Order: sequence, then C-alpha cells, then structure tokens
Amino acid sequence: MPVQSNLDVFFTPLSVALIGASRTPGKVGYSILENLKKSFTGPIYPVNPEATEIAGLNTFPSLTDIPGEVDLAVIAVKAEIVPTILEECIRKKVKAVIVISAGFGEIGNKKGEEELQKLIKGKNIRMLGPNCLGVLSRTMDTLFLPREKLKRPPEGQISFLTQSGAVGATILDLIGFEGVGISKFVSYGNAADINELELLTYLGKDMATRAIAMYIETIHNGPEFIKIASKITPNKPIVALKAGKTEKGAEAVLSHTGRMAGPAQVYSAAFKQAGVIEAKNTQDLFDFAKVLSSQPPIRSGRIAIITNGGGFGILATDSAVRHGLELPELSTETVRALSKSIPEYSTARNPLDLAGDANSERYEAALKAVASDKNIEGILVIPLVQTPELDEKIVDVLRDAKIYGKPIVACMMGGDYTMKHGRRLEAFGIPVYDTPERAIKALAALRDYGRIIAPPVPEKVEEKTVKKAKKLLAKKAKKAAKKSVKKKKR
Amino acid sequence: MPVQSNLDVFFTPLSVALIGASRTPGKVGYSILENLKKSFTGPIYPVNPEATEIAGLNTFPSLTDIPGEVDLAVIAVKAEIVPTILEECIRKKVKAVIVISAGFGEIGNKKGEEELQKLIKGKNIRMLGPNCLGVLSRTMDTLFLPREKLKRPPEGQISFLTQSGAVGATILDLIGFEGVGISKFVSYGNAADINELELLTYLGKDMATRAIAMYIETIHNGPEFIKIASKITPNKPIVALKAGKTEKGAEAVLSHTGRMAGPAQVYSAAFKQAGVIEAKNTQDLFDFAKVLSSQPPIRSGRIAIITNGGGFGILATDSAVRHGLELPELSTETVRALSKSIPEYSTARNPLDLAGDANSERYEAALKAVASDKNIEGILVIPLVQTPELDEKIVDVLRDAKIYGKPIVACMMGGDYTMKHGRRLEAFGIPVYDTPERAIKALAALRDYGRIIAPPVPEKVEEKTVKKAKKLLAKKAKKAAKKSVKKKKR
Repeated sequence: MPVQSNLDVFFTPLSVALIGASRTPGKVGYSILENLKKSFTGPIYPVNPEATEIAGLNTFPSLTDIPGEVDLAVIAVKAEIVPTILEECIRKKVKAVIVISAGFGEIGNKKGEEELQKLIKGKNIRMLGPNCLGVLSRTMDTLFLPREKLKRPPEGQISFLTQSGAVGATILDLIGFEGVGISKFVSYGNAADINELELLTYLGKDMATRAIAMYIETIHNGPEFIKIASKITPNKPIVALKAGKTEKGAEAVLSHTGRMAGPAQVYSAAFKQAGVIEAKNTQDLFDFAKVLSSQPPIRSGRIAIITNGGGFGILATDSAVRHGLELPELSTETVRALSKSIPEYSTARNPLDLAGDANSERYEAALKAVASDKNIEGILVIPLVQTPELDEKIVDVLRDAKIYGKPIVACMMGGDYTMKHGRRLEAFGIPVYDTPERAIKALAALRDYGRIIAPPVPEKVEEKTVKKAKKLLAKKAKKAAKKSVKKKKR
Repeated sequence: MPVQSNLDVFFTPLSVALIGASRTPGKVGYSILENLKKSFTGPIYPVNPEATEIAGLNTFPSLTDIPGEVDLAVIAVKAEIVPTILEECIRKKVKAVIVISAGFGEIGNKKGEEELQKLIKGKNIRMLGPNCLGVLSRTMDTLFLPREKLKRPPEGQISFLTQSGAVGATILDLIGFEGVGISKFVSYGNAADINELELLTYLGKDMATRAIAMYIETIHNGPEFIKIASKITPNKPIVALKAGKTEKGAEAVLSHTGRMAGPAQVYSAAFKQAGVIEAKNTQDLFDFAKVLSSQPPIRSGRIAIITNGGGFGILATDSAVRHGLELPELSTETVRALSKSIPEYSTARNPLDLAGDANSERYEAALKAVASDKNIEGILVIPLVQTPELDEKIVDVLRDAKIYGKPIVACMMGGDYTMKHGRRLEAFGIPVYDTPERAIKALAALRDYGRIIAPPVPEKVEEKTVKKAKKLLAKKAKKAAKKSVKKKKR
C-alpha cells in the first residue's frame, strides 16, 4: 500500500457525485446531499434512478449518465450494491470514493470488504471507508448527520482522524459548541484502502493543520505508526485516544470492528516512543488538542495562576502540583510592579488572588507584570465574569496578553453568560476550560509536548552550564563594576 | 456553640431588611435588592440614608426607622460600619443576619471578626458570614451576582454548602446551565458564628435535601465533623471537595482565609470514616451530587452499557473496568428478549451496541430486557441523538425506564441539539453527563455510596449463605420435581 499519496481530492475535488441520493428528509442520502450543498461549491451530481430532481438539483439515473467528469463519488447505498457502483466508478475514471455504506468487515462480512479491495487494486482510484462518515472541512461535508442536530465547528487548526464515526461526530459536535475550530475531520471506518497511517502522513504535511487528534481502536502496523508519528511530532503535536485498553474493552472492539485491539501497554509504549501525547479519556482528547494547536509548548513547567476567586486559585494549585507543574515565587520586580496595581487586601504571590472586586484593568496590569516574570513560563487565568466589577473587557485583555508570547489558558466556569465570553476568547485563539482542573491538565499537556520536542537537559550538563554561566556573569559584573567606578570618578 | 438549632429563618423569614441597599446598577447593594425582590414574597425594607425609594420600594434611613419587625437582616456595608449595624440589629430584635461585607479574618483583621462574635454572644441572634454570599433557595436569594450574569438553577434536591463564595457561585451557575436543581445553597464565608458543622446538621434533617455537596478549605472541628457526618451519611449522601490538599495549595488557603488547612491524608481519612464521598475535583463534586440525589445506590457494581455508538460502548467499558465496575454477561432470558428487538448485525452482549440506526423503540425494548436482568444493577445509556433515526422520543423512553427501579445515568455528548434533550432528561431526574467517562464515574460513586450504607458481606459469610441458599433451592427443586411428576401422572 503506498503510504505517500495526495489525498487532496477528498477535500477539494472538482466535482462530486452522490450515489444513493434521497428525496426523503431524515434519510442518509438526503442529509449528505444537504451537507454537500452547504459546503461544496463545484458541480454536485445526485444519482437516483427514481427521481429527476432532488432539492433543486438535476438527478441522474446512474453514474455513467453524468455528462461531466466526476472527481469524487460518495456512495450511500446498500452493502450488496456497493461493488457494482464501485465498478462503475472505475469505468467513469472517478479519482476517489467515500463508501458510507456499512455491512462489511464490522459485521463479519470480510468477503464483501475483500471484494472492494480487489476491485480497486491497481486502479487509479482511492477509497475511504466502508462504514464511515467521510470528511468534513470548510470545502467538503459528507457527514449524514443533519446540521440542525450536529453543529459544524468553525474553521480552525486542529485536524481529527477517527475510526468510529459516532465517537468522531459527537466530539465534533461538542467542540463545535465550544467554538473550537477544525481544519479537517476524517472518519475512515473500516480502512479497507486508506488507513490511519496514510491519513497521518497526509495531515503531517498539511499546512492548515497545526495539531492532530486521533480516536483509534486498532492500528494497522505498529512499527510503521511509530515511524510516521515520530517524524511528525517534533513539528506538530499528535494527541491520541485509544479505546479498548482494558481486556473487556478490547472484547468490545472485536465485536465493533472485527479486529483485535492489542494490549494497552503496547499502545502506550508506542505513543511514548513516537512522541504522541496520550489522552486518557474523551475530554482529554480535545482539551489537549486545542491547547497544543494554539499555544507554544512549555519546557520548564513553571506556571503562574491569576484569578479573582481565591478558592479557584487553591483548587488550581492543588491540581498543578498533582500534575507536576511548579508555582514559583514571583520575582522582586514582579512583586514591585504588582504592588502598584493590586489593592492592599490582595497579596503579590503565586497563585495570585486579585480579589473579588477585580476589574479588567487590574487583570491587565497583573498579566503584564506576571508575563514579564522570567520565572514564569505559562499562565492560567481564572476570571469570574459573574462578579459585578468584571465585564466583557476581560476578553480583550486576555486576547492582548498574547503579545507576551507566553502560553495562556483560561478557566471560565459558569452558564450562558460566562460561556458567551468563553467562546469569544476561544475564537481569539486562547483555549478555555470550564474547570480549573481541566485547564491545569491542558498546561501539563503543553509541558509534556515541550519535553517531547526538547527533552530536559540532564542534571550534570545543567550544572556545568550553570557554572559556566556564573563565571561569565561574574566576569561581566567585574567589568561593569570597573566601568561604574570609572564613571563615578569622572 | 450550639450545634442544634433552627436555621429556617435564613430561608423563610417573615421580613427582610437590606442594610446598604444601593440605587446604582452593578453595585452589590443593588444586585442583592434585585434578587431579594425576585425570590422573597414578604416585606423587604431597603436601608439607605440617602434615598427615599429604590427600585419601587420605600427606603428607610436606618434599621430603627423600620416600623415593622425584621426577621432577617442582610448587611452589605463597609467592614468598619458592620459592628454598629449589628448593634442596631440586636436592639431591633432581628433574629438572623447575613454579613456579606468582606474585610475581616480573611485579610488578617481578626480583631474585627472577634468584635462581631462578642456582640452577638449570648444574644438571641444568629449570624452567617462575614465575607459570604449568604443563601439561595426558591424563597430567598441574597447573592450579589446579577441574574443576567449568573443563572439561578431550578428547584431540586441537592443542597450545597460552600466556604468560598466564588467557587460556590460559579459551580451553581454551571449546574444551573445543565438544568440540575438545588434545594438550598449556603455560602458561609468566615463562619464567625454559624459554621459548616451546624449547617451540615441542619441540612441532614432538612426534608427537601436529598444529597449534600460541600466545598471546604478548612474544617472547624474534625472529630465533631466525623460525628455529625456519620449520622447523616447512612440516610443522605454527602459529597465533599476539599481544597488545599497539596502543601502549595494549603499555603494558598492560609492567604485566602487566614486559616490552616490540615494535611490531605487527615481529611481523606476523616471523609472515609464518616462515609463522606470525596470529590477529587470540581467536576466530580456535582457529577456525584446529582447522581446521588436522584438514583438509588448500587451495591454490587454490576452494570450494563447500552448505546447506538459502538465506540462509546468501548470507551465506557474501559472506564468502567478502571473504576472497578463489572460488566457481567447478559442472562439467557435477556439475550432471548433482545434477539427479538435488535437487528441481526447487532449482538446481544454487554456493552450492548444497538447499531447506528437504532430508534427510540429499539432503545425501549433493550432497556426493558436489560433492566429485567438479575445480573444487572445499574445502567448507563449513551444515546447519540445526532443520528438521523433517533429523535426526542428517546427522552421519554429513558424517563419511563425509571419504573424498573434500577439506577440509570445517561451520557449525551454534543452541542445545542443534544444539550436541549439532555436538559429535558435531567429535569425528569435522570442525571446526564457529556462524556462516557464522567457517566461511569457517577455510577462508581453510586457503588461507593452503596458500600457505605451497606458494606459488602465478607467472603466467608457469603459462602455460607450461598451454601444455605443452594440447599434451599435443591429442596425446592426436589419438591417441584415431585409436584411436576404428580402433575404429569394426572
């Protein structure tokens, strides 16, 4: 199987045919057509032998009746008919097909799946699926989930590979709700032709993708996965959620996909070796992807916490310590700078409690002081916008704090009002979480990625470097002292 | 300090005075007045020497100018004036005061706090605070957080005690968004008079409270806490989140409340001894409270998972195993019943994957079969309502499944459409979570509570019981066999 290939045709084809287009709302072939119309701007050819027009588009009795060329064919017919349609696609010189139809390997029909593989072998055609949702991007949407039921996320920098269409789609829905953006979503199902390895290679090279999230139940080729992922992770973070890690869960994988899920330790070890950040649960998968796609990595693990809710400072501190993050004391300069902008009943320490009556100006001054502190590499801000003194300006203050170049994450906990502001902040590229613990885990993921791309310097070497640096500094100090003496003399 | 007392006056006073009422929107004294008006139906007396009318209510220059009796006084003035106001309250024979004002023990002003304590000592008056938000219930709302910024949750069965007003309020906001109901919310701040022990005792006896959630940084009297909580937990679950469990976090507590947070292990041990379920983070606190307040406890830990998204079945299974829950095989009867209602491409096993095209009817049949299974004590349902075949009827199906008397929790993951249905389900008393892992943790909390109120029978005793039961069954079987032989003979 060629691992190098151009899969662009799935996202930006010149024309698309939908075989199995339906007139009936609620049906798969109806929803896909609706979503194609809302995403794809080129010619769409619905194929349905019993209709002449669907949703304002002329239909065709069969693929071969379509006058123009077809770049991409989306197939949503019964499993039994798929091979016939695939043969037609090959004759029509279709470049790529997405087989939405289920009823193959996942229900034990391995023969049916092998038939599809045989048909395309050696032909100039690529296949996604069967048993998948296909793709979603700004320019292409083959999902059969209606938009009124599943909101599409805005365009963004995370791409998402998923073996399970259901898991992928619902996560997509949830992060769309949060306002997190997606570049490319691919549900590859049974992976009879294109599998996660090839997709990973593709996304690794994709300029629009800044972080890759993966939901996997099985991996086709472990060593190959490690090889591919290892090349990507130094430049682009990968977060993976592996399902079926327990024995009982692996049994469920077998009945879900007809494939064996390897032992948990093997996967975890492979992820570690390849520099892939492992998500332990569904929440982690996107919590990590969104911070890794938008914030610079952290190397030292030294963070500061700024809040106007003292209790949250404590909860976040507890969580930080548990995740191996440090809260260093603020430098003398920072304390001095803070003392000018915080009230006397607040103390210039880390975690920094700006007090319940903090307004956006106080936050602005505190962010400036703390972000300039050399001891601090990352910042967690927990603004309680429910308090009377704090208003929507806090969103702009946090957005502007990006100029300091240090990673920032925000915890905004609350209902509609808070979420509205959280979504605005998220749109400005600052990841927002609804509990302090989720936000801290995100910072810990940034630290993990920082260590992946630049492992910590071993202690001994560091000692030497420190000695050298000290000597150098001592020399400089001497020189400076001499100069100052000279100046004074003058 | 009397531990036994009636704190009803804080929730259902005959009249309320607000000292520090303000005409300026955004000010604390304005927000409280607005919220009092929206909750309390009896006479409200705003006190402000510079106004004659605020928000349609006649104001009074001072407390002593109020013609009628005052049951409850809410004090929101500068810390320096609080003692004078408190003296007036005592003279006016006010039964209870809520001191919203900050600037006492929490900023090191211990003298000021002691002054308040001295003033009320031996007098027929009780005090909540200082440095608190006061109370929220259907009949009383003293929170200074405007309703447009912080949505009030519907009436429900959880009561919530919080030392930090900020943490309490934001959690309240978040759960209000989810549609989870609250009976009584109490932010007690510095606890100069009424503390968490007395409040716990009160809520333990409160008929409207079915579960108690607590956010605490410090506990006044450990042994007393264990004594009080131990009496409550056999009848009513308590979930507690303790902040400042790490050394660094404890330092932050000291600067937040001026009090020492004891070592983490001491708290965990105390919770365990008292049968209190410990929340490890903010999310757990309400995830656990809502399941414990609405579902019967689980003793065996044997659960079933039903979904129309295979991947979610696997993720939930992984999580269940990690939290010590079992997924037993379904009984022969269940499998037989299921085989009639699930399609051939679905398998009657646990986790039960009803396939992507499952509709509400299939869920209904599956729930009936699984809930009737003797091996199953609790059920996690994961309906993906984004799929074309599933519609809002699933909410009614799940509501009706309550008749089986077994604990049910739901995972509904997705955006607006899914959340809308989730909130409806939540209103019917079925706890809803947005990831399978959160839902599983909730079931594990039900199992933990089940073990608290009825510890598992030791192995040996069980063996004996099994032997006895076997003997009994054998006897019965013999009798039945004899009878059947007799019948056949007839």
